[in-house]
Amino acid sequence: MPRFNPLVETLAAPPIPAVFAWGRAYDGRSGPMIDLSQAVPGYPPHPEMLRLLGECAAARAYTGYGPIEGEDALRAAYAAHLTEVYGAPLAAGNTHITSGCNQAFICAAMAVAGAGDAVLMTDPYYFNQETTLAMLGIRTRFAACDPENGFLPGLDTLAAAITPDVRALALVSPNNPTGAVYPPDLLAAIYDLCAARGIWLILDETYRDFLPEGAGRPHDLFARKGWEETLIGLYSFSKSFCIPGHRLGAITAGAAVVEQIAKIMDNLQICPPRSAQAAVAAALPLLSGWREENRREIARRVTALEETMAGVPDWRVAAVGAYFAFIGHPYGDKSSAFVAERLAKEAGVLCLPGSYFGAGQEGYLRFAFANADVSTIGLLKDRLNGFERA
Amino acid sequence: MPRFNPLVETLAAPPIPAVFAWGRAYDGRSGPMIDLSQAVPGYPPHPEMLRLLGECAAARAYTGYGPIEGEDALRAAYAAHLTEVYGAPLAAGNTHITSGCNQAFICAAMAVAGAGDAVLMTDPYYFNQETTLAMLGIRTRFAACDPENGFLPGLDTLAAAITPDVRALALVSPNNPTGAVYPPDLLAAIYDLCAARGIWLILDETYRDFLPEGAGRPHDLFARKGWEETLIGLYSFSKSFCIPGHRLGAITAGAAVVEQIAKIMDNLQICPPRSAQAAVAAALPLLSGWREENRREIARRVTALEETMAGVPDWRVAAVGAYFAFIGHPYGDKSSAFVAERLAKEAGVLCLPGSYFGAGQEGYLRFAFANADVSTIGLLKDRLNGFERA
Repeated sequence: MPRFNPLVETLAAPPIPAVFAWGRAYDGRSGPMIDLSQAVPGYPPHPEMLRLLGECAAARAYTGYGPIEGEDALRAAYAAHLTEVYGAPLAAGNTHITSGCNQAFICAAMAVAGAGDAVLMTDPYYFNQETTLAMLGIRTRFAACDPENGFLPGLDTLAAAITPDVRALALVSPNNPTGAVYPPDLLAAIYDLCAARGIWLILDETYRDFLPEGAGRPHDLFARKGWEETLIGLYSFSKSFCIPGHRLGAITAGAAVVEQIAKIMDNLQICPPRSAQAAVAAALPLLSGWREENRREIARRVTALEETMAGVPDWRVAAVGAYFAFIGHPYGDKSSAFVAERLAKEAGVLCLPGSYFGAGQEGYLRFAFANADVSTIGLLKDRLNGFERA
Repeated sequence: MPRFNPLVETLAAPPIPAVFAWGRAYDGRSGPMIDLSQAVPGYPPHPEMLRLLGECAAARAYTGYGPIEGEDALRAAYAAHLTEVYGAPLAAGNTHITSGCNQAFICAAMAVAGAGDAVLMTDPYYFNQETTLAMLGIRTRFAACDPENGFLPGLDTLAAAITPDVRALALVSPNNPTGAVYPPDLLAAIYDLCAARGIWLILDETYRDFLPEGAGRPHDLFARKGWEETLIGLYSFSKSFCIPGHRLGAITAGAAVVEQIAKIMDNLQICPPRSAQAAVAAALPLLSGWREENRREIARRVTALEETMAGVPDWRVAAVGAYFAFIGHPYGDKSSAFVAERLAKEAGVLCLPGSYFGAGQEGYLRFAFANADVSTIGLLKDRLNGFERA
């Protein structure tokens, strides 16, 4: 057989299907499975969202090819939404629709870096971002986050990690896997660092809509003069509208970046799927109240998780925020994959091992707690306390 | 501003939007625009297809993440279809669903080649395949097709172009842009060449469903023992079901290739959009009669084009087949882009310049005649004969 691309062949298999296999092997001995593995909302989409998706998909209007950058209606609606969220004038031309946020990331990465260049990530990192760079031959540099500071990276650590081959810093806030929310002041300082060092800041804000109510704007970076020359924002409609299966994400960037990304997207898939774009364009203003209610619901789940974990003395919430918590497990001599697999098969708690997010994260597990409602989260106390040390 | 990836920055802008701009500049002086630019079916999707798309998109069942490789139902239905088309036992595990055939191509290319490797293409080529390789830093080698032999490549030409860095040969049959249909014997010889030289054969059969009725199987390659170690097939549901806006394509390959591609697709978009997959899974057996009728309709359009062009003495049908014709224009001293732009703005005939498909193709234009019905195709005679030499 001719050889495969070694950059792809040496990639580990996608982790989520392997974790699902642990879940399927659970015999129910401790009660119903508590699935905290993948970042999927634990509540259904709004009925009106489903109605709009059905209506648009049945329309002939969306069967032909559409604009590479996305449907005009969605770009306009999303720009209006961005303008409100950030208090900065963002236009449709500052947006590019993608098939989910993984695709937004690969487009942004390819626009600024090629094989042999490097991208700086924080450690722990979101594994798909690391594998995306690896398969493209883009080198990765890592800046360690500080467990003593809620898994936020120090500015000096970041600055020291910007080697001359680094083209961009990739950040996720609220963070995946830790849940850590980067304060606006820290983001402002990181932005200044990137601008001073002449590298791009790729800021993934997939979980932006689940920041606590009343926390203020996520940051003021889009209001900076000349932000287009430093910042590329990423987003996902999957979590906010509970429709990951319809694959919709977005990039926010300057027109020059959007122009580069359109060239990539033309090769990648010509245009994003159209009917779901039309549906979300209508839903974006329509379902803002519903999304606010979900924000409050996720906040209740944060509280429930903190209260529950307070009753599990051997385990530790190392960081928590919108959607995820990074949990320190008490088995220092065991790998995180060993603990996660036993937890799934014996305690019926499905989560991801810390090692999936960085070699140094063996002491942690990622709980995607947003998947579970408040009463289910409450069950974690007995499950974890009863989990026999393997 | 930090620099862009030079491999992306130096790519030309996507060509189709530029051609559309010529169309918008047409003042109607010669009658309604005849759009032969993009490969989109000129007839609507079947009402049942639209009903299924609507029904599935409105279902909660498809809102979550799905399998990376595609919906089980679609993979099974497509494998059954492949088994029938090729007379070879192909299983669901031999398929991987993608968001259109461009995505199928980039996945196949990345699976076998990285920056610094090379892929051999025929010249003329489908431009998105060339730009896809270019943006990945994969080198391109070209084997010239023979205009005197209906734009088929010679076996010796191909063999001579397989330099040691070539990892795969990328072919399109029926061809884009020429329409040329590669005879099964030629494909068998090319397959043998690739197998002997230890390179992959990536065979894009997007227009397979429009081969003439009664022409027999497209080829017997999937019935070869060990085909999994040489062949990767690509396909698009867009043309056959008239739903390019829903972005659905597929790869047919051995299990080891599918495993590599799943790793790429997980990074690219986690999974293809789900509801349209479910709809096409149901439509694939249901609408086979309708697709056969479309095959006959496209054949009628081929005949209409040949008859019409016989009445345009200065122009020449260099090649014609399913969906496309490669037309020699009579203005030897003008670039194909110059001719195509004037043809759009003065004669109201929108088509693509030959130069978009290779530097040596200035003497040609691509007519995507399948976009137009028989009576519209008939209008070309007066339009072209009346087109004043610019």
